[in-house]
Amino acid sequence: MRTPKPGPGYNGPTRGAEDAALERIGVSLAAQFGPAPPGELWFGDDAAVIRIADPRLVVATDIAVAGVHADLALLTEEDLGWRAVAATVSDIAAMGARPTHLLSSLCVAPDTDLDGLCAGVAAAAGVWGCIVVGGDLSRSAVAMASITVLGTLEDNPAEALTRSGSRAGERIFVTGPLGSSAAGLRYLRAGELAEGPSAAAIEAHRRPRARVEEGLAARRAGASALMDISDGLLLDLDRMGRSSGVGIVIESVPVDPEATVEEALSGGEDFELLIVTAHPEALLTAFKSAGLRPPVPLGLCTNDPLERLLDGARFEGRGYQHEIG
Amino acid sequence: MRTPKPGPGYNGPTRGAEDAALERIGVSLAAQFGPAPPGELWFGDDAAVIRIADPRLVVATDIAVAGVHADLALLTEEDLGWRAVAATVSDIAAMGARPTHLLSSLCVAPDTDLDGLCAGVAAAAGVWGCIVVGGDLSRSAVAMASITVLGTLEDNPAEALTRSGSRAGERIFVTGPLGSSAAGLRYLRAGELAEGPSAAAIEAHRRPRARVEEGLAARRAGASALMDISDGLLLDLDRMGRSSGVGIVIESVPVDPEATVEEALSGGEDFELLIVTAHPEALLTAFKSAGLRPPVPLGLCTNDPLERLLDGARFEGRGYQHEIG
Repeated sequence: MRTPKPGPGYNGPTRGAEDAALERIGVSLAAQFGPAPPGELWFGDDAAVIRIADPRLVVATDIAVAGVHADLALLTEEDLGWRAVAATVSDIAAMGARPTHLLSSLCVAPDTDLDGLCAGVAAAAGVWGCIVVGGDLSRSAVAMASITVLGTLEDNPAEALTRSGSRAGERIFVTGPLGSSAAGLRYLRAGELAEGPSAAAIEAHRRPRARVEEGLAARRAGASALMDISDGLLLDLDRMGRSSGVGIVIESVPVDPEATVEEALSGGEDFELLIVTAHPEALLTAFKSAGLRPPVPLGLCTNDPLERLLDGARFEGRGYQHEIG
Repeated sequence: MRTPKPGPGYNGPTRGAEDAALERIGVSLAAQFGPAPPGELWFGDDAAVIRIADPRLVVATDIAVAGVHADLALLTEEDLGWRAVAATVSDIAAMGARPTHLLSSLCVAPDTDLDGLCAGVAAAAGVWGCIVVGGDLSRSAVAMASITVLGTLEDNPAEALTRSGSRAGERIFVTGPLGSSAAGLRYLRAGELAEGPSAAAIEAHRRPRARVEEGLAARRAGASALMDISDGLLLDLDRMGRSSGVGIVIESVPVDPEATVEEALSGGEDFELLIVTAHPEALLTAFKSAGLRPPVPLGLCTNDPLERLLDGARFEGRGYQHEIG
């Protein structure tokens, strides 16, 4: 972590390109997040020091690579930064935790808009209440944002919600319609402008939203399992089924009006949450009292761990997988 | 974070390449670090849950990119992973903290040895007592390891040591001779084998060591400032001077027997610590009682924040800086 803030001795002529960039970033972060409280130390030294209220710390990390996670012919560096943060915050939300602090390691190629990348990271961090406390910066052949988010289980004594807590007979819900992000990518590839009916889908692709309040509400309501849909509904449901040792029967899938059924089933990156619960009424009540859109029934968990049914036919866990040997 | 561990339902035919690689990594990590204690959750879900003993959490992140931080014509992926961890642990050590937990996001190109990269990360994590609790995996045009390390200030009530705590009149020490890593790189480029007098320097380049115990001892001994030398002595001293608002007078530089003076002054990546203290005797005593090699006097901090003297002549803060616009 090397984000020097301007010290009292800053004056000399020896600033390199990296230190100058880091200083510019540090000034911008200080303007957004303000000074650290006494006893804490944010960006500006070898490491950050923060104070944690609950000893149960939730941590997640995610990478977004240009050309893999975001096509910079269609999206901006600001989008890339935002998307990296959204994906990582979503991992925290998927435990029923609240994100609190963020570290951001950025790689920039010669033609990368570093300020845009930083702006996207900082804007998304702000939306979900994360303080950016540190980071690193490197050149590279491709632009990349590696994000780490810390979160808290707050004062709720319940444990974090895993993907392995589902039990046979429990109901599966999803926090909203699926396929928006994939539809947005299709519109962008077709050269659609961000206006008219495609605008919401394009926005969903460029600036996805993590469902933090929904995850907290699910945990408050005594849900059994929680997972975010990052790589595609069928793939992530299959992962949850494997992890919990349960079968999955899908009864209905809420599809975004702009999306195809296939986009809803395997598109991924909507970051809606899958919630499994033995207490559907409590879940609906908790969402209502939190002012959240009601979760949508999706299906149920069954006894046979190999069962994977959609419209009465077996489904495979298709979705996005990196080609890694 | 997506490192699925084999759940009870693991049996089906739909494992993708990414999930298969993550599962292999998860099994290997479980073998090294064992199961998480009750109430904690390591790799295998959307995020990790860990319990922190001291509310003061120290966090740092660092990236190592193939072709930028490590030449994979000279080094292996295992070296790249090790070096990324060493650099990040060194940031924690440079606060006088002890590293405890690590997250590792890896990017692999088609020809990258993923298992080697993971092995280097895990080996280095083990050396410094870090548990690998999470990570992410992506393909990319270039191999890359982005490491986040969490650390603790333990039960020592003293604050973390920053680079901005130096005051005029205080003495500067360094934990060991400099230039080894740069000398090792020179030997590797010249095609030297890792035998004979060059072996130690090559090892210093391939597998640098973070000075965790030294940082803790410096904090126990009431040091004023602490910083690791990652980018070069003169550059990092200049950064410390700027951050603290003090001048720097270098009186003598301990040079590794295999290194040139220039390598010691600007080579970087030795990860020795710069310690500033008003109590040199206490520092020497603390190192001795911890069984550590005595710190070496380097120079002193002065009143004029612009002063930068080496052998009576002004020095510039030269060292490694990424070319970032």
